[in-house]
Amino acid sequence: MKIKYELLKKDKNTDARYGIIHTNHGSFETPMFMPVGTLANVKTLIPEELKSMHSGIILSNTYHLWLRPGEDLVAKAGGLHKFMNYDGPILTDSGGFQVFSLAKNKKKDITEEGVHFKSHIDGSKLFLTPEKSIEIQNKLDSDIAMSFDECPPASASYEYLKNSVERTLRWAKRGKDVFNNPNQSLFGIVQGGAYEDLRKFSAIETVKMDFDGYSVGGVANDGESKEDMYKAVDYSIKYLPEDKPRYLMGIGEPIDILEATERGIDMFDCVLPTRIARHGNAFTRNGRINMKNQKYKEDFTPIEQNCDCYTCTHFTKAYIRHLIASNESLYGRLLSIHNIRFLIKLTEDIRENIKNDTFKEFKEDFIKNYKKTN
Amino acid sequence: MKIKYELLKKDKNTDARYGIIHTNHGSFETPMFMPVGTLANVKTLIPEELKSMHSGIILSNTYHLWLRPGEDLVAKAGGLHKFMNYDGPILTDSGGFQVFSLAKNKKKDITEEGVHFKSHIDGSKLFLTPEKSIEIQNKLDSDIAMSFDECPPASASYEYLKNSVERTLRWAKRGKDVFNNPNQSLFGIVQGGAYEDLRKFSAIETVKMDFDGYSVGGVANDGESKEDMYKAVDYSIKYLPEDKPRYLMGIGEPIDILEATERGIDMFDCVLPTRIARHGNAFTRNGRINMKNQKYKEDFTPIEQNCDCYTCTHFTKAYIRHLIASNESLYGRLLSIHNIRFLIKLTEDIRENIKNDTFKEFKEDFIKNYKKTN
Repeated sequence: MKIKYELLKKDKNTDARYGIIHTNHGSFETPMFMPVGTLANVKTLIPEELKSMHSGIILSNTYHLWLRPGEDLVAKAGGLHKFMNYDGPILTDSGGFQVFSLAKNKKKDITEEGVHFKSHIDGSKLFLTPEKSIEIQNKLDSDIAMSFDECPPASASYEYLKNSVERTLRWAKRGKDVFNNPNQSLFGIVQGGAYEDLRKFSAIETVKMDFDGYSVGGVANDGESKEDMYKAVDYSIKYLPEDKPRYLMGIGEPIDILEATERGIDMFDCVLPTRIARHGNAFTRNGRINMKNQKYKEDFTPIEQNCDCYTCTHFTKAYIRHLIASNESLYGRLLSIHNIRFLIKLTEDIRENIKNDTFKEFKEDFIKNYKKTN
Repeated sequence: MKIKYELLKKDKNTDARYGIIHTNHGSFETPMFMPVGTLANVKTLIPEELKSMHSGIILSNTYHLWLRPGEDLVAKAGGLHKFMNYDGPILTDSGGFQVFSLAKNKKKDITEEGVHFKSHIDGSKLFLTPEKSIEIQNKLDSDIAMSFDECPPASASYEYLKNSVERTLRWAKRGKDVFNNPNQSLFGIVQGGAYEDLRKFSAIETVKMDFDGYSVGGVANDGESKEDMYKAVDYSIKYLPEDKPRYLMGIGEPIDILEATERGIDMFDCVLPTRIARHGNAFTRNGRINMKNQKYKEDFTPIEQNCDCYTCTHFTKAYIRHLIASNESLYGRLLSIHNIRFLIKLTEDIRENIKNDTFKEFKEDFIKNYKKTN
């Protein structure tokens, strides 16, 4: 069965929308933040913890799973859900972004056929094509697969982007043609940088191919400004159908989630919450804080007083700071739990406020507080 | 309130004994394996996980907590239980072993007053005395504190050991004299290497001081043979009172736990289960296995078919091997859970077999299987 998106409520004052997506592994409401489980695990966490954070769907990386442990092994295990013992919805990306960002020395040779590059692990030669990406994802058996796209840097010229958008459309078509998994849905990806005409062209042509959902890509590659990101969404989203989910790839900054939600985006993913956790940082309503800070040494209050996450309901800042100072890896787990829950709770609050037509005020209030110096 | 030990059953065929220890933070049956929470956390794990493994008591390290975060901070948090949010029994060691094993370049100056040495973290000069060790432990407010002892290497001469045993007795007395926490119990430590007369002397003189429990020390320092360990226990234990618990320090190899249990030991601790977990190793009834082994690549069975731990009831060898091969730190957590549960389950099985007077057969069977090449 393919996924089914239901639009439940439109905000009266903005383009924000509240909906629900039904999958073969359960339903989740949108807008929703997806934690990233790169290598078939959300770093340091177990499935039960993700459930307890009310994680509706997680993302896993096709490129990484292709290299380790390989899609055939995952298929032998009975698919990605069984392999990692996670029975909720999973989305896999296409590998396009990793080819762009992880290729050894960032060198790659993009041809019409696909991309030649070297493994970030051992430098071995690799070749990823639209067909191969879909074939891998079909075997991983995620709930949602993504089309293989080219991810050019923000610095790319208009001419380059124009060719790239056209190639990405041809790649999307090739991927869709070989797609062969009745229990999996496939999303198309809109590219085109911050150019209105390219985004329009990319969106209209991608929608013509009739995907199960649509993604706005090329906003978290390398050096895109916030303004370019908002433009990319604005220029793309008006051509996307209302009855399909819209996913902004690689975005997880709280303010960006709010800005994109206001523009009609439903899904987000980012490694930010787990990555900043490893660096000892925590999200709070008053901005990001560095838990290593000396001022938390004798602070026997939780990271956030009203946070319902396991970390905040069980441990103090002083304890977490001690774990960081002592390099005890448990801190990464505790901060990952808090940070992921923070973003999921943000999307819960967003949904509640869309239901009540108070999203606009909520967003403004949140941003005002978030920009406070802690 | 001090701890209370009840001897519930003596094995008919060996000196093994089944008992229970009541503390201010709950009771636990013995023999019992204590997971090590060096820096106020059992590496990678949360208190709920320890409870789910039926961990009866954990150990934490005075030396480490003295340096980071400092006993005063822990006291301000309301003691070690509150600081780490673990409401079960906690034993703290004295720091004697860490001074021996962790002093920078292993250089130290042992005087009658105490030990001068340099921090393993920053090389700063430190001075630990019997009084200081007790004062720190009083502030940490663990359920059981240990006397500060000297831990000489296995290679120490008889003459050296004789002087060391006498000094350790004087240190035990000094520590006991300043001990000042009515909710904490204090154990004495028997030293004396593998010499019968020194162990006898040390045991008799330590018991005269009337501690709440007794430890056999100096068996896991540096190069002691298995035979020396068994001798140390044999030579010490016959002089220890039946109505007090007996703790063999730093021992966690399954066969050693069985051998020492047979000789009348009640408590064990070791970093082994978490340390080998970080190296990708798992305990099994058929011996220790290296989970990185290629042969587990497509093994979709748990580490142990009948193990009730979270890891074995949720994940396959193939998945854990993938996490190790991909350097995803979750593997250390999953293997720590299995390995600690393995040793706790071993002590559960030991207790059951003492109750049924079948300990001897259980031990022989276990060892026969454990020595099988996997």
